[in-house]
Amino acid sequence: LKKHKFIVNGRIWVETATGLFLGYGRIELLKKIREFGSISKAAAEMKMSYRQAWELVDSINKHSNDPLVIKQTGGKGGGGAILTTAGEKAIKDFEKLNENFQNFLTEQTYHLGNL
Amino acid sequence: LKKHKFIVNGRIWVETATGLFLGYGRIELLKKIREFGSISKAAAEMKMSYRQAWELVDSINKHSNDPLVIKQTGGKGGGGAILTTAGEKAIKDFEKLNENFQNFLTEQTYHLGNL
Repeated sequence: LKKHKFIVNGRIWVETATGLFLGYGRIELLKKIREFGSISKAAAEMKMSYRQAWELVDSINKHSNDPLVIKQTGGKGGGGAILTTAGEKAIKDFEKLNENFQNFLTEQTYHLGNL
Repeated sequence: LKKHKFIVNGRIWVETATGLFLGYGRIELLKKIREFGSISKAAAEMKMSYRQAWELVDSINKHSNDPLVIKQTGGKGGGGAILTTAGEKAIKDFEKLNENFQNFLTEQTYHLGNL
């Protein structure tokens, strides 16, 4: 009889008193915006609508003390955008946090042993 | 200008190669079954259908090496059920795991500082 192996898994996010600030999806969006310099291209890469991506960026900026993304309206293709220094820092901090979390999951899986 | 305070939040669960074994909802169900000795009463308390609760219990047992719940069919009210020793241990282990996770979240919130 084969025994089940147990894995501790999970997800984390950063929130403020008024709601979600950063999670895996939002970080992915920020990284795509950094890569493409464009909300519309980032949205297309993530298979979401431009409107959805705009709203996510608005929500991210609304929940941060300094804007993480500066949006540029109009112009050819529309929706040019750049990541601020605060945006770069937020990605870095979240990735460090997630690295800590992945280590936590590995440790806890190890200590869980056989349920 | 009021500054946002950031909180690291999240959720964890235990899975096997074939799917979810235990999460917060399943642990709550196991505790209600322990309390009431009945899947139907536990289901009612959790505002789920008896069928849903049965299926969750089946899934829990299917993903564990030893059954956590022994179901008794038939009889007045139907669906009497008892938690096994493995069931008691699973609740205890999950709660310890979740305690470790809550401590992790508190630490990470503290170290996050100002994004």
